[in-house]
Amino acid sequence: MTEVISTELQQQLDKRYGAGAPIADGVGNETLEVLLRHRTTRRFLPGTVSDTELRLIIAAAQSASTSANFQFTSVVVVDDPALRNRLAELAGGQQLVRDAAVFLVWVADWSRNIAIATEHGHSIEATAYLDSAVSSIVDVTLSAQNAAVAAESLGYGITFVGALRNNIDAVIAELRLPQWTFPVYGMAIGVPDPADPADIKPRYGQSVVVHRNTYSPPAAADVQDYLDRINAYYREQELPADWAKNRLAGRISTKESLHGRQHIRRTFGNQGFELR
Amino acid sequence: MTEVISTELQQQLDKRYGAGAPIADGVGNETLEVLLRHRTTRRFLPGTVSDTELRLIIAAAQSASTSANFQFTSVVVVDDPALRNRLAELAGGQQLVRDAAVFLVWVADWSRNIAIATEHGHSIEATAYLDSAVSSIVDVTLSAQNAAVAAESLGYGITFVGALRNNIDAVIAELRLPQWTFPVYGMAIGVPDPADPADIKPRYGQSVVVHRNTYSPPAAADVQDYLDRINAYYREQELPADWAKNRLAGRISTKESLHGRQHIRRTFGNQGFELR
Repeated sequence: MTEVISTELQQQLDKRYGAGAPIADGVGNETLEVLLRHRTTRRFLPGTVSDTELRLIIAAAQSASTSANFQFTSVVVVDDPALRNRLAELAGGQQLVRDAAVFLVWVADWSRNIAIATEHGHSIEATAYLDSAVSSIVDVTLSAQNAAVAAESLGYGITFVGALRNNIDAVIAELRLPQWTFPVYGMAIGVPDPADPADIKPRYGQSVVVHRNTYSPPAAADVQDYLDRINAYYREQELPADWAKNRLAGRISTKESLHGRQHIRRTFGNQGFELR
Repeated sequence: MTEVISTELQQQLDKRYGAGAPIADGVGNETLEVLLRHRTTRRFLPGTVSDTELRLIIAAAQSASTSANFQFTSVVVVDDPALRNRLAELAGGQQLVRDAAVFLVWVADWSRNIAIATEHGHSIEATAYLDSAVSSIVDVTLSAQNAAVAAESLGYGITFVGALRNNIDAVIAELRLPQWTFPVYGMAIGVPDPADPADIKPRYGQSVVVHRNTYSPPAAADVQDYLDRINAYYREQELPADWAKNRLAGRISTKESLHGRQHIRRTFGNQGFELR
């Protein structure tokens, strides 16, 4: 007789992966449950994040790995309601930017390091290259994800707001971001509305994303298994199903689907990044 | 009389921030302790990560936020010793690439989404723009940081290996990465050697990195406080002190300090990314 395993972690794995889910097999801890529990929060109830909690969220962000200790992360805490409102509009009219208890803008910031190096009389040559932008985006994102996990461990919901890049020049102007910085995305943190139907969303099976020593394209059956699971999820949510047709293709087929983000290269140049 | 607060979380905060550390004030949980405990692991003891643990680490990675559910993350598990050895050399001769129980290469992967969209008869235009590379790097890094936190929650140590980009073309060839993919960094996971002196590393005070509504350059005294703390840390570790002079400036003053990463733009182009 097979024993039914029904830990929270196993239930989470089942929601992510369906019938082929990995078996937790007794492995697990509170942190893994926080990580696996993640779902997008698009509706927030009124409520606050305490100053102490916000400081711990930022401390978690700063505790992430950082390339050569460069600490490229700056974060703008937006609590002015009028500014929140303008950012909500710049991000395509997202109400959650207004409603979240805390709204953060994560900024890739070379300016501190450049100031310090310049004071020591050094020239700055490396920043002209694409890798410098890449390494700072990586740095900020390691930090931001730690902040997300910290907030979720405290019971809050979070959502990343990449659509801030739709109008990146206006965001830079609003936040008065200096040369050698650029905003990468926003993050809404707050009390999740339990009426929000969003649940743990299915992801590709591990056979699709994990490769062994060399890359192997996914089996068609494994991709189809995923398309079936994600479409079933959208139907349950009463959202338009057919993820591949309605969502994926609609976002990559035309440059207009980038909603302004096709222009960020010019902005990077204006901010100092040649991306050679 | 002031009560002495000495939780693990408070001790971690004190190591990160010194005298001006935030006070945890009774807030805390196991996940925050895992996040704040992070330190780079450069020396690994022999030991393994079980298959179940690795599946849970990958499940954590896939549970992170992903832009429009695009799931840009692929991960190559490198367990062939000869391949490990070659990657170690390509990353500047890093022994930890050989010694880690698990070595992962995190890959930004547009190829799956492009294949699906093409099957549906759609043209692909958005991928020509810089933002497409940015959004996929963000996606991979949200995943990779979740994997790092999951591994650390299980008692392992981790280190990111950005130096894989030093020889990105050779890494692409070794892992047979197809068009519309690129490797972002490696990650070593394993049993930390307790003899490794690396400790929780000081970071900038929160006043330096946190801005309120608009960006404000850091106060010189706050930057100097940090330089004093990080230099004291390096002296304790018996490493060359003067972070600003020896480490920071040495890494950004010349293009040669990028150790080959000044050429990644050409590689992005070869892989299909025009970065318009």
